[in-house]
Amino acid sequence: MLATLSFFVELDRLKSVERRNRLADGSRRENTAEHSWHLGMAALVFAGFATEPIDVARAVAMALTHDVVEIDAGDTFAYDDGEHAASKEAREQAAADRLFGMLPAPTGAMLRELWDEYERGETAEARYVMAVDRMAPMLLNLVEGGRTWREHGITRDRVVARNGPHVEPVLPDVWRHAAALLTALPP
Amino acid sequence: MLATLSFFVELDRLKSVERRNRLADGSRRENTAEHSWHLGMAALVFAGFATEPIDVARAVAMALTHDVVEIDAGDTFAYDDGEHAASKEAREQAAADRLFGMLPAPTGAMLRELWDEYERGETAEARYVMAVDRMAPMLLNLVEGGRTWREHGITRDRVVARNGPHVEPVLPDVWRHAAALLTALPP
Repeated sequence: MLATLSFFVELDRLKSVERRNRLADGSRRENTAEHSWHLGMAALVFAGFATEPIDVARAVAMALTHDVVEIDAGDTFAYDDGEHAASKEAREQAAADRLFGMLPAPTGAMLRELWDEYERGETAEARYVMAVDRMAPMLLNLVEGGRTWREHGITRDRVVARNGPHVEPVLPDVWRHAAALLTALPP
Repeated sequence: MLATLSFFVELDRLKSVERRNRLADGSRRENTAEHSWHLGMAALVFAGFATEPIDVARAVAMALTHDVVEIDAGDTFAYDDGEHAASKEAREQAAADRLFGMLPAPTGAMLRELWDEYERGETAEARYVMAVDRMAPMLLNLVEGGRTWREHGITRDRVVARNGPHVEPVLPDVWRHAAALLTALPP
């Protein structure tokens, strides 16, 4: 019980991990905990639009869990291809060992399996959570007129190349709408 | 699809609803979106400690959904017993009508049922989510030495009276540890 309580308090730190993208109203940057809640809700409401049948409960749990490693490893910007991105896997594996290892064995193993499954990306649920994970910041950026992309010099083509292959095969209708909004932005 | 996308963007506003309690490190107040994520994770990891068998998937979805109405209705401080608390139910019912009504019927009805079930508090899952919802800010306050309670002149007896009846019957081991920490605080 004490181990699970310690893990619960440790999770609080994810609220202080800052992502690059802003909230839809532009007021501040998003943190990874609230982003993970948004993905959990997305996993609940978009399942009926997916091209494959989805185990929604598993997808929701995966959405909540997949970024917990950022407590130790920090957020890696989706368009980063420098040293930070290169060391991402090793940092996140060590973080998963430590964080999920805080829990009693069956519960820790359950979360670790969700995280591993997401990372491998080989199941319908992993592909679905990855699609909503790419969709979410793209939509928030689009609502805000593409500010984060402009600030980092990221072109429209790069947004399409980075997100299309993950979103379009899983949520083609979402991608169609996002692509229409993208064409309204400067290239 | 457009309705679901609009709902998804609307959900972003929950990240700007501020609660009274602070993060465990005291750095700032918590918002309702990140609180909801924390509850979803708690629902995943504490289920084995509950006194009743729990449908974990349902509890997680309920934890994520139960505070969405605060987008319109705002947060009501747990120890508020003034006018704001008295009008809470009417404000939240109107919020539920509007927000869940944004979605296509089957999905909107699913979220509305989760919210209604939580509000009625009559199922094992509703009691469990209410227990983790009471446990979470209490633990964050305890880690921080009871600062929010002191700021609002809330005595230890009031914390026990408010939270014990919800936490103790559902998660007795959690309550035992919290109660031990509470006795270390000034009354």
